[in-house]
Amino acid sequence: MKIIVIGATGTIGSAIVKAIGTRCEVIPVSLSQSIIKVDIADKTSMLRMFETTGRVDAVISAAGLAKFGPMTSLSDADFALGLNNKLMGQVNLVRLGIEHVNDNGSFTLTSGILSRRPMTGSTAISLVNSAIEGFAGAAALEMPRRIRINVVSPNWVVDTLKAFNMDPSIGTPVEVVARAYVQVLEGAMNGEVLDAI
Amino acid sequence: MKIIVIGATGTIGSAIVKAIGTRCEVIPVSLSQSIIKVDIADKTSMLRMFETTGRVDAVISAAGLAKFGPMTSLSDADFALGLNNKLMGQVNLVRLGIEHVNDNGSFTLTSGILSRRPMTGSTAISLVNSAIEGFAGAAALEMPRRIRINVVSPNWVVDTLKAFNMDPSIGTPVEVVARAYVQVLEGAMNGEVLDAI
Repeated sequence: MKIIVIGATGTIGSAIVKAIGTRCEVIPVSLSQSIIKVDIADKTSMLRMFETTGRVDAVISAAGLAKFGPMTSLSDADFALGLNNKLMGQVNLVRLGIEHVNDNGSFTLTSGILSRRPMTGSTAISLVNSAIEGFAGAAALEMPRRIRINVVSPNWVVDTLKAFNMDPSIGTPVEVVARAYVQVLEGAMNGEVLDAI
Repeated sequence: MKIIVIGATGTIGSAIVKAIGTRCEVIPVSLSQSIIKVDIADKTSMLRMFETTGRVDAVISAAGLAKFGPMTSLSDADFALGLNNKLMGQVNLVRLGIEHVNDNGSFTLTSGILSRRPMTGSTAISLVNSAIEGFAGAAALEMPRRIRINVVSPNWVVDTLKAFNMDPSIGTPVEVVARAYVQVLEGAMNGEVLDAI
Protein backbone atom coordinates (compact mmCIF):
# COMPACT_ATOMS: atom_id res chain seq x y z
CA MET A 1 0.00 0.00 0.00
CA LYS A 2 1.13 3.52 -0.87
CA ILE A 3 -0.09 6.03 1.68
CA ILE A 4 0.02 9.80 1.86
CA VAL A 5 0.25 11.10 5.43
CA ILE A 6 -0.50 14.82 5.59
CA GLY A 7 0.80 16.64 8.63
CA ALA A 8 3.54 14.04 8.78
CA THR A 9 5.89 16.16 10.86
CA GLY A 10 3.32 17.07 13.51
CA THR A 11 2.90 15.38 16.89
CA ILE A 12 0.21 12.97 15.71
CA GLY A 13 1.38 12.72 12.09
CA SER A 14 4.90 11.65 12.95
CA ALA A 15 3.52 9.01 15.33
CA ILE A 16 1.28 7.70 12.52
CA VAL A 17 4.26 7.42 10.18
CA LYS A 18 6.14 5.53 12.88
CA ALA A 19 3.16 3.25 13.63
CA ILE A 20 2.74 2.31 9.97
CA GLY A 21 6.44 1.54 9.89
CA THR A 22 7.69 -0.44 6.95
CA ARG A 23 4.47 -2.35 6.30
CA CYS A 24 3.49 0.22 3.68
CA GLU A 25 5.14 2.83 1.50
CA VAL A 26 4.50 6.10 3.33
CA ILE A 27 4.72 9.45 1.54
CA PRO A 28 5.11 12.05 4.28
CA VAL A 29 3.66 15.46 3.38
CA SER A 30 3.58 18.63 5.44
CA LEU A 31 3.22 22.38 5.14
CA SER A 32 6.95 23.13 5.05
CA GLN A 33 9.17 20.37 6.45
CA SER A 34 8.74 17.45 4.05
CA ILE A 35 10.06 16.86 0.53
CA ILE A 36 6.48 17.01 -0.75
CA LYS A 37 4.67 20.04 0.68
CA VAL A 38 1.01 20.94 0.83
CA ASP A 39 -1.12 23.76 2.16
CA ILE A 40 -4.52 22.12 2.68
CA ALA A 41 -6.21 25.54 2.59
CA ASP A 42 -5.05 25.90 -1.02
CA LYS A 43 -6.65 23.66 -3.65
CA THR A 44 -3.89 24.34 -6.19
CA SER A 45 -1.29 23.18 -3.69
CA MET A 46 -3.31 20.03 -3.08
CA LEU A 47 -3.65 19.25 -6.80
CA ARG A 48 0.11 19.70 -7.20
CA MET A 49 0.64 17.23 -4.33
CA PHE A 50 -1.49 14.54 -5.99
CA GLU A 51 0.28 15.11 -9.32
CA THR A 52 3.60 14.56 -7.56
CA THR A 53 2.57 11.48 -5.58
CA GLY A 54 0.61 9.80 -8.34
CA ARG A 55 -2.19 7.38 -7.45
CA VAL A 56 -2.19 6.10 -3.87
CA ASP A 57 -4.08 3.57 -1.79
CA ALA A 58 -4.80 5.76 1.19
CA VAL A 59 -4.76 9.35 2.31
CA ILE A 60 -4.43 10.08 6.01
CA SER A 61 -4.86 13.66 7.16
CA ALA A 62 -3.53 14.73 10.53
CA ALA A 63 -3.46 18.39 9.59
CA GLY A 64 -5.63 21.42 10.08
CA LEU A 65 -5.74 24.68 11.94
CA ALA A 66 -8.61 26.05 14.05
CA LYS A 67 -8.64 28.69 16.76
CA PHE A 68 -9.16 28.11 20.49
CA GLY A 69 -10.48 30.99 22.59
CA PRO A 70 -13.53 32.48 24.34
CA MET A 71 -16.41 32.87 21.87
CA THR A 72 -16.75 36.59 22.54
CA SER A 73 -13.10 37.20 21.72
CA LEU A 74 -12.97 35.05 18.57
CA SER A 75 -13.05 37.20 15.44
CA ASP A 76 -14.68 36.45 12.10
CA ALA A 77 -11.17 35.61 10.87
CA ASP A 78 -10.72 33.12 13.74
CA PHE A 79 -13.87 31.25 12.74
CA ALA A 80 -12.86 31.50 9.05
CA LEU A 81 -9.48 29.91 9.82
CA GLY A 82 -11.12 26.73 11.09
CA LEU A 83 -13.62 26.66 8.22
CA ASN A 84 -11.03 27.25 5.47
CA ASN A 85 -8.21 25.21 6.94
CA LYS A 86 -9.11 22.25 9.17
CA LEU A 87 -12.64 21.82 7.78
CA MET A 88 -12.68 22.64 4.06
CA GLY A 89 -9.00 21.69 3.76
CA GLN A 90 -9.90 18.12 4.69
CA VAL A 91 -13.19 18.19 2.74
CA ASN A 92 -11.36 19.36 -0.38
CA LEU A 93 -8.72 16.69 0.17
CA VAL A 94 -11.52 14.18 -0.33
CA ARG A 95 -13.24 16.05 -3.18
CA LEU A 96 -9.98 16.45 -5.12
CA GLY A 97 -8.40 13.23 -3.95
CA ILE A 98 -11.06 10.70 -4.96
CA GLU A 99 -9.73 10.28 -8.48
CA HIS A 100 -6.19 9.84 -7.19
CA VAL A 101 -7.09 6.99 -4.81
CA ASN A 102 -7.10 3.39 -6.01
CA ASP A 103 -10.08 1.02 -5.79
CA ASN A 104 -10.63 -0.20 -2.19
CA GLY A 105 -8.56 2.72 -0.91
CA SER A 106 -9.36 4.97 2.00
CA PHE A 107 -9.41 8.47 3.40
CA THR A 108 -8.88 9.02 7.11
CA LEU A 109 -9.55 12.53 8.39
CA THR A 110 -8.95 14.04 11.82
CA SER A 111 -11.52 15.75 14.05
CA GLY A 112 -10.92 15.80 17.81
CA ILE A 113 -12.50 15.16 21.18
CA LEU A 114 -13.89 18.72 21.40
CA SER A 115 -16.71 17.82 19.02
CA ARG A 116 -18.37 15.52 21.53
CA ARG A 117 -16.77 16.85 24.70
CA PRO A 118 -16.68 20.62 24.30
CA MET A 119 -14.99 22.89 26.80
CA THR A 120 -14.91 26.61 27.49
CA GLY A 121 -13.10 28.21 24.59
CA SER A 122 -13.82 25.48 22.07
CA THR A 123 -16.75 26.93 20.06
CA ALA A 124 -14.81 27.35 16.79
CA ILE A 125 -13.01 24.01 17.17
CA SER A 126 -16.08 22.03 18.29
CA LEU A 127 -17.93 23.46 15.27
CA VAL A 128 -15.18 22.36 12.88
CA ASN A 129 -14.63 18.92 14.42
CA SER A 130 -18.37 18.15 14.36
CA ALA A 131 -18.58 19.33 10.75
CA ILE A 132 -15.77 16.97 9.70
CA GLU A 133 -17.58 14.05 11.34
CA GLY A 134 -20.92 14.99 9.72
CA PHE A 135 -19.29 15.36 6.32
CA ALA A 136 -17.49 12.01 6.46
CA GLY A 137 -20.61 10.14 7.52
CA ALA A 138 -22.43 11.48 4.47
CA ALA A 139 -19.48 11.20 2.07
CA ALA A 140 -19.12 7.51 2.92
CA LEU A 141 -22.47 6.90 1.24
CA GLU A 142 -21.20 8.35 -2.03
CA MET A 143 -17.65 7.04 -2.32
CA PRO A 144 -17.00 5.16 -5.57
CA ARG A 145 -14.99 1.97 -6.12
CA ARG A 146 -15.28 0.74 -2.50
CA ILE A 147 -13.18 3.64 -1.27
CA ARG A 148 -13.75 4.14 2.45
CA ILE A 149 -13.77 7.38 4.47
CA ASN A 150 -13.53 7.63 8.24
CA VAL A 151 -12.59 10.08 10.95
CA VAL A 152 -10.28 9.62 13.90
CA SER A 153 -11.21 11.83 16.84
CA PRO A 154 -8.12 12.07 19.03
CA ASN A 155 -8.25 12.91 22.69
CA TRP A 156 -5.76 15.49 23.94
CA VAL A 157 -2.29 14.04 23.44
CA VAL A 158 -0.09 13.81 26.56
CA ASP A 159 2.80 15.68 24.90
CA THR A 160 0.50 18.49 23.75
CA LEU A 161 -0.86 18.93 27.27
CA LYS A 162 2.68 19.07 28.64
CA ALA A 163 3.62 21.67 26.01
CA PHE A 164 0.67 23.83 27.12
CA ASN A 165 1.48 23.33 30.82
CA MET A 166 -1.80 21.48 31.27
CA ASP A 167 -2.42 18.37 33.38
CA PRO A 168 -1.04 15.50 31.25
CA SER A 169 -2.94 12.85 33.22
CA ILE A 170 -6.14 13.50 31.20
CA GLY A 171 -4.27 12.90 27.94
CA THR A 172 -3.69 9.91 25.70
CA PRO A 173 -0.19 8.77 24.68
CA VAL A 174 0.42 9.68 21.05
CA GLU A 175 1.25 6.02 20.26
CA VAL A 176 -2.31 5.06 21.26
CA VAL A 177 -3.75 7.80 19.05
CA ALA A 178 -1.59 6.70 16.13
CA ARG A 179 -2.78 3.12 16.54
CA ALA A 180 -6.34 4.28 15.85
CA TYR A 181 -5.29 5.55 12.42
CA VAL A 182 -3.65 2.20 11.64
CA GLN A 183 -6.82 0.39 12.78
CA VAL A 184 -8.91 2.51 10.42
CA LEU A 185 -6.38 2.06 7.60
CA GLU A 186 -6.31 -1.72 7.90
CA GLY A 187 -9.91 -2.27 8.99
CA ALA A 188 -13.16 -2.34 7.04
CA MET A 189 -15.00 0.50 8.74
CA ASN A 190 -16.65 3.15 6.59
CA GLY A 191 -18.38 6.41 7.55
CA GLU A 192 -17.37 6.02 11.18
CA VAL A 193 -15.78 8.15 13.85
CA LEU A 194 -13.17 6.32 15.88
CA ASP A 195 -12.50 7.94 19.23
CA ALA A 196 -8.78 7.65 20.01
CA ILE A 197 -8.98 7.99 23.76
CA MET B 1 -41.70 36.87 26.88
CA LYS B 2 -40.66 38.71 23.75
CA ILE B 3 -39.37 36.31 21.10
CA ILE B 4 -37.77 36.80 17.70
CA VAL B 5 -38.60 34.02 15.25
CA ILE B 6 -36.32 34.12 12.22
CA GLY B 7 -37.60 32.38 9.12
CA ALA B 8 -41.10 33.10 10.39
CA THR B 9 -42.75 32.72 6.99
CA GLY B 10 -41.17 29.36 6.17
CA THR B 11 -42.77 25.95 6.63
CA ILE B 12 -41.29 25.35 10.09
CA GLY B 13 -41.09 29.00 11.15
CA SER B 14 -44.76 29.72 10.55
CA ALA B 15 -45.69 26.59 12.52
CA ILE B 16 -43.49 27.78 15.40
CA VAL B 17 -45.23 31.17 15.41
CA LYS B 18 -48.59 29.38 15.47
CA ALA B 19 -47.49 26.98 18.25
CA ILE B 20 -46.30 29.81 20.47
CA GLY B 21 -49.67 31.50 19.88
CA THR B 22 -50.55 34.35 22.16
CA ARG B 23 -48.59 33.11 25.19
CA CYS B 24 -45.68 35.32 24.19
CA GLU B 25 -45.07 38.40 22.10
CA VAL B 26 -43.66 37.03 18.84
CA ILE B 27 -41.65 39.22 16.48
CA PRO B 28 -41.72 37.45 13.12
CA VAL B 29 -38.65 38.09 10.97
CA SER B 30 -37.82 36.78 7.52
CA LEU B 31 -35.67 37.46 4.48
CA SER B 32 -38.33 39.40 2.57
CA GLN B 33 -41.91 38.77 3.69
CA SER B 34 -42.08 40.19 7.24
CA ILE B 35 -42.21 43.77 8.49
CA ILE B 36 -38.77 43.24 10.06
CA LYS B 37 -36.40 41.64 7.57
CA VAL B 38 -33.04 39.96 8.02
CA ASP B 39 -30.47 38.26 5.85
CA ILE B 40 -28.64 35.96 8.28
CA ALA B 41 -25.64 35.81 5.92
CA ASP B 42 -25.18 39.56 6.45
CA LYS B 43 -23.99 40.75 9.87
CA THR B 44 -25.04 44.36 9.20
CA SER B 45 -28.55 43.20 8.43
CA MET B 46 -28.57 41.22 11.67
CA LEU B 47 -27.38 44.17 13.77
CA ARG B 48 -30.10 46.33 12.19
CA MET B 49 -32.68 43.70 13.16
CA PHE B 50 -31.60 43.71 16.82
CA GLU B 51 -31.62 47.53 16.87
CA THR B 52 -35.21 47.45 15.57
CA THR B 53 -36.48 44.76 17.94
CA GLY B 54 -34.70 45.97 21.04
CA ARG B 55 -33.88 43.50 23.81
CA VAL B 56 -35.71 40.19 23.70
CA ASP B 57 -36.05 37.09 25.84
CA ALA B 58 -35.50 34.52 23.15
CA VAL B 59 -34.26 34.13 19.61
CA ILE B 60 -35.47 31.18 17.57
CA SER B 61 -33.86 30.56 14.22
CA ALA B 62 -35.62 28.41 11.65
CA ALA B 63 -33.64 29.84 8.77
CA GLY B 64 -30.64 28.92 6.70
CA LEU B 65 -29.70 27.75 3.25
CA ALA B 66 -27.45 24.82 2.33
CA LYS B 67 -27.14 22.86 -0.87
CA PHE B 68 -28.29 19.28 -1.48
CA GLY B 69 -26.63 17.30 -4.27
CA PRO B 70 -24.06 14.60 -5.10
CA MET B 71 -20.67 15.47 -3.60
CA THR B 72 -18.90 15.31 -6.95
CA SER B 73 -21.29 17.84 -8.47
CA LEU B 74 -21.29 20.29 -5.54
CA SER B 75 -19.13 23.34 -6.32
CA ASP B 76 -17.00 25.36 -3.94
CA ALA B 77 -19.83 27.91 -4.00
CA ASP B 78 -22.34 25.24 -2.99
CA PHE B 79 -20.29 24.34 0.09
CA ALA B 80 -19.72 28.06 0.82
CA LEU B 81 -23.48 28.70 0.74
CA GLY B 82 -24.05 26.33 3.65
CA LEU B 83 -21.05 27.66 5.57
CA ASN B 84 -21.94 31.34 5.11
CA ASN B 85 -25.69 31.04 5.40
CA LYS B 86 -27.10 28.22 7.52
CA LEU B 87 -23.95 27.72 9.61
CA MET B 88 -22.24 31.07 10.19
CA GLY B 89 -25.58 32.88 9.83
CA GLN B 90 -26.82 31.09 12.95
CA VAL B 91 -23.43 31.26 14.70
CA ASN B 92 -23.29 35.01 14.13
CA LEU B 93 -26.86 35.34 15.34
CA VAL B 94 -25.59 34.08 18.69
CA ARG B 95 -22.32 36.06 18.64
CA LEU B 96 -24.12 39.32 17.83
CA GLY B 97 -27.31 38.52 19.68
CA ILE B 98 -25.97 37.76 23.16
CA GLU B 99 -26.00 41.39 24.28
CA HIS B 100 -29.56 41.82 22.98
CA VAL B 101 -30.98 38.89 24.95
CA ASN B 102 -32.23 39.35 28.51
CA ASP B 103 -30.99 37.39 31.54
CA ASN B 104 -32.37 33.80 31.54
CA GLY B 105 -33.12 34.13 27.85
CA SER B 106 -32.44 31.58 25.15
CA PHE B 107 -31.27 30.89 21.63
CA THR B 108 -32.72 27.99 19.67
CA LEU B 109 -31.01 27.12 16.41
CA THR B 110 -31.98 24.66 13.70
CA SER B 111 -29.88 21.81 12.34
CA GLY B 112 -31.65 18.81 10.79
CA ILE B 113 -31.82 15.04 10.72
CA LEU B 114 -29.12 14.78 8.01
CA SER B 115 -26.44 15.39 10.62
CA ARG B 116 -27.03 12.07 12.34
CA ARG B 117 -28.79 10.26 9.52
CA PRO B 118 -26.98 11.27 6.35
CA MET B 119 -28.17 10.25 2.90
CA THR B 120 -26.74 10.27 -0.60
CA GLY B 121 -26.48 13.91 -1.63
CA SER B 122 -26.27 15.33 1.89
CA THR B 123 -22.52 15.93 2.32
CA ALA B 124 -22.76 19.74 2.42
CA ILE B 125 -25.91 19.72 4.56
CA SER B 126 -24.71 17.01 6.98
CA LEU B 127 -21.49 19.00 7.43
CA VAL B 128 -23.41 22.18 8.25
CA ASN B 129 -25.99 20.54 10.52
CA SER B 130 -23.29 18.74 12.52
CA ALA B 131 -21.31 21.96 12.82
CA ILE B 132 -24.32 23.81 14.26
CA GLU B 133 -24.77 21.08 16.86
CA GLY B 134 -21.08 21.09 17.77
CA PHE B 135 -21.04 24.86 18.06
CA ALA B 136 -24.10 25.02 20.30
CA GLY B 137 -22.80 22.38 22.66
CA ALA B 138 -19.63 24.39 23.18
CA ALA B 139 -21.33 27.81 23.22
CA ALA B 140 -23.63 26.63 26.03
CA LEU B 141 -20.58 26.45 28.30
CA GLU B 142 -19.83 30.12 27.72
CA MET B 143 -23.23 31.82 27.72
CA PRO B 144 -23.49 34.65 30.26
CA ARG B 145 -26.43 35.56 32.53
CA ARG B 146 -28.02 32.08 32.46
CA ILE B 147 -28.82 32.43 28.77
CA ARG B 148 -29.42 29.01 27.23
CA ILE B 149 -28.59 27.76 23.75
CA ASN B 150 -29.98 24.63 22.12
CA VAL B 151 -30.55 23.11 18.72
CA VAL B 152 -33.67 21.53 17.28
CA SER B 153 -32.91 18.89 14.67
CA PRO B 154 -36.08 18.44 12.64
CA ASN B 155 -36.86 15.34 10.68
CA TRP B 156 -38.12 15.80 7.12
CA VAL B 157 -41.45 17.62 7.35
CA VAL B 158 -44.43 15.89 5.72
CA ASP B 159 -45.35 18.96 3.64
CA THR B 160 -41.77 19.34 2.40
CA LEU B 161 -41.67 15.70 1.28
CA LYS B 162 -44.97 16.18 -0.56
CA ALA B 163 -43.63 19.32 -2.26
CA PHE B 164 -40.60 17.33 -3.49
CA ASN B 165 -42.79 14.38 -4.61
CA MET B 166 -41.13 12.19 -1.98
CA ASP B 167 -42.78 9.58 0.22
CA PRO B 168 -44.51 11.63 2.96
CA SER B 169 -44.87 8.60 5.27
CA ILE B 170 -41.27 8.98 6.52
CA GLY B 171 -41.94 12.58 7.48
CA THR B 172 -43.01 14.34 10.67
CA PRO B 173 -46.03 16.68 10.79
CA VAL B 174 -44.84 20.27 11.04
CA GLU B 175 -46.94 20.75 14.21
CA VAL B 176 -44.84 18.08 15.94
CA VAL B 177 -41.63 19.77 14.82
CA ALA B 178 -42.91 23.15 16.03
CA ARG B 179 -43.72 21.66 19.42
CA ALA B 180 -40.03 20.78 19.89
CA TYR B 181 -39.11 24.47 19.61
CA VAL B 182 -41.73 25.38 22.22
CA GLN B 183 -40.39 22.64 24.52
CA VAL B 184 -36.88 24.07 24.22
CA LEU B 185 -38.18 27.61 24.69
CA GLU B 186 -40.10 26.79 27.87
CA GLY B 187 -37.79 24.08 29.22
CA ALA B 188 -34.50 24.25 31.11
CA MET B 189 -32.26 22.37 28.67
CA ASN B 190 -28.94 23.88 27.68
CA GLY B 191 -26.37 22.78 25.11
CA GLU B 192 -28.63 20.03 23.86
CA VAL B 193 -29.85 18.80 20.52
CA LEU B 194 -33.55 17.94 20.49
CA ASP B 195 -34.51 15.58 17.67
CA ALA B 196 -37.93 16.56 16.37
CA ILE B 197 -38.92 13.26 14.82
